[in-house]
Amino acid sequence: MSTPYLRERRDELLRDYRDALLRDVAPFWLRFGLDREHGGMLTALGRRGEVIDTDKSVWFQGRAGWTYATLFRRVERRPEWLDAALSCVRFLRDHCAGPSGKLLFTVTRDGKPLRMRRYVFSESFAAIAYAAVHAATGEAEWRERALGAFATFLRYQHEPGHIAPKVEPTTRPSVGLSPWMIQLVTAQDLRECLGDVEVLGRTLTQWAKAACDAIVRLFVKPDLRAVMEQVAPDGSVIDHFDGRLLNPGHAIEAAWFLLREARRSGDAALATTSLQMLDWMWERGWDREHGGLLYFTDLHGKPVQEYWAHMKFWWPHNEAMIATLLAHAHTGDPRYAEMHRAVHDWSRARFPDREHGEWFGYLDRQGRPTTELKGNMWKGPFHLPRQQLVCWEILEGRFDATSA
Amino acid sequence: MSTPYLRERRDELLRDYRDALLRDVAPFWLRFGLDREHGGMLTALGRRGEVIDTDKSVWFQGRAGWTYATLFRRVERRPEWLDAALSCVRFLRDHCAGPSGKLLFTVTRDGKPLRMRRYVFSESFAAIAYAAVHAATGEAEWRERALGAFATFLRYQHEPGHIAPKVEPTTRPSVGLSPWMIQLVTAQDLRECLGDVEVLGRTLTQWAKAACDAIVRLFVKPDLRAVMEQVAPDGSVIDHFDGRLLNPGHAIEAAWFLLREARRSGDAALATTSLQMLDWMWERGWDREHGGLLYFTDLHGKPVQEYWAHMKFWWPHNEAMIATLLAHAHTGDPRYAEMHRAVHDWSRARFPDREHGEWFGYLDRQGRPTTELKGNMWKGPFHLPRQQLVCWEILEGRFDATSA
Repeated sequence: MSTPYLRERRDELLRDYRDALLRDVAPFWLRFGLDREHGGMLTALGRRGEVIDTDKSVWFQGRAGWTYATLFRRVERRPEWLDAALSCVRFLRDHCAGPSGKLLFTVTRDGKPLRMRRYVFSESFAAIAYAAVHAATGEAEWRERALGAFATFLRYQHEPGHIAPKVEPTTRPSVGLSPWMIQLVTAQDLRECLGDVEVLGRTLTQWAKAACDAIVRLFVKPDLRAVMEQVAPDGSVIDHFDGRLLNPGHAIEAAWFLLREARRSGDAALATTSLQMLDWMWERGWDREHGGLLYFTDLHGKPVQEYWAHMKFWWPHNEAMIATLLAHAHTGDPRYAEMHRAVHDWSRARFPDREHGEWFGYLDRQGRPTTELKGNMWKGPFHLPRQQLVCWEILEGRFDATSA
Repeated sequence: MSTPYLRERRDELLRDYRDALLRDVAPFWLRFGLDREHGGMLTALGRRGEVIDTDKSVWFQGRAGWTYATLFRRVERRPEWLDAALSCVRFLRDHCAGPSGKLLFTVTRDGKPLRMRRYVFSESFAAIAYAAVHAATGEAEWRERALGAFATFLRYQHEPGHIAPKVEPTTRPSVGLSPWMIQLVTAQDLRECLGDVEVLGRTLTQWAKAACDAIVRLFVKPDLRAVMEQVAPDGSVIDHFDGRLLNPGHAIEAAWFLLREARRSGDAALATTSLQMLDWMWERGWDREHGGLLYFTDLHGKPVQEYWAHMKFWWPHNEAMIATLLAHAHTGDPRYAEMHRAVHDWSRARFPDREHGEWFGYLDRQGRPTTELKGNMWKGPFHLPRQQLVCWEILEGRFDATSA
């Protein structure tokens, strides 16, 4: 859909998305992060790209593999992008599994085991990397690995006993939003690359739909105008610190995952819900005093326990840029254009490092960087390049086609 | 020792320590935190003392029990202080153990299990509470419980296999400063209350000395002018994020624990080392731009991974007030008077809530509160009242006698 806002800002936004992706962000990690000695991606980089810590995030072997294979598929078949993606998936395959076969959370530069965590998000990020590399190369191995990693993810999430809960479940049983969001986006990304195949007896579209249904049934609260992060198994609110904790950027990310699914399936009710999720969580997260999205807020406006809740992180702003632009393109509603303008302009003025490229990751509430790090075990080539690519494709009206 | 600084500021400092302890901090938690229905102490309180979360920290049943029993012993035999301490230790005894007997990390208000952690710090804080209540009441039960809890702590720390390491020990073995600090201060606090008795075949003084020796041998680095938080088992620096991470307030706390032991045993070399620890970590932690102590810094001045490293927390300032005042009283050196003046004046202007009492816990780098919370699972009646009591006693020249 073309709108006055999209026409008016098109050139400027393409510069900030397409051009910054191609000239700054994608080259930054190839130049400084790609490990030409041991393979895979280093993400703990300082302001000038210098390596601060040689330990490798397993999440980021998958996420970076996905990013570069996706650029190769959706932008241009540049050999250096495919080489980077292959380096990441080979490092994943050869060096990132623990003794049980479950993927680790961190490994040394040369792939020795460091840390295992209870969750299976390393598997979901490996799955999307394998799938994108399969779609880029046609090699059958990566297709099998993608389906295997997603099956492992699903088994851990849905068969009880695999993931030990942090909080005693007989006292206070709870379920989280994150695993359902990851199920949704992983099914979507796999479907884009492998077609709508079956995993554990259901098609990828059915896994995506089950996740949308669970999110709407359990976590979306019209009476409270909020999207919860953690609820009791029946969806009721747990009136304690963790139960009241809202993560606006995270819920806004969920909103655009749902809108993507709604647009594909033509589910108007789901699209409406996804827009409400965006509306409510924008309302709860946007900092009226200093601008930007607060990291955490409390359902009832009480203080939250996390002492850094007031900070402004890069990724919620990336997710909000996608969600508001997609909502505007979907509805034509100028209200979403104004939200997109607010988050784009606030972010653009603060996150990019004009001297050395890429973005700072962590700002204080007033919007000043609190560290010079360009990456760590949590920040690397994922949220920012994904946002730049998706927003570029939305502007050019081809996001539904490329991501279908 | 009397010095010009101590004479000049005595009245003012007594107001901020003795008077604020007796009129503000000790009453605050009795009034708002003490749970008259289920026993024990609630610590998740808002600015006006309102209960924000009814979950209970097991650490704080021990820490609050120690605080109020210690006020009863070292300040005045007020029945309400002993009642509060008894309420905490009874809640600990009756409601805080997991199925294996190991203490939990959090429980519900009425004592149902919520979270267990790998560490045994709940045991060390229980031990000092039981010991202080024994010294206050003479009841044998609390003496036995104190010795039992400390023995459990020591077994977990010193017998391998009890605490699963976070990082794969065959790849990167490491040891931390915290368990040794806790061994030292727990042995000291138990000795003060129970005399120099034996636990697991060694006297409390021997356990304290073993901890001092380990801290000096492994974590104190004269060539780097730093106290490490985590090192390889041979004391060498691990050149990664976690290995380079310095926690100046924590190391300064360790410094005064060592100085306390050195003054008691007359170990002049240990006293000198403890003063160097204070000097180096003040140099590394004091924020020359905005004042106050930074939470984390990097050994080599690189960016740290923790995005809230720039924040100013209450407790490092409490520990630095004790350490600088004790160092000044020990040496008469005006340099420590100036350090005490700096941390006292900076803290006094920012942390206390002039309207509703007690202290804010978390300031941004510039010194503004980032949350109104008065307490949570990490903040409650411990670091602040301990600092007020210890500094008051130092000013009146009786800290060695009360804490011996």
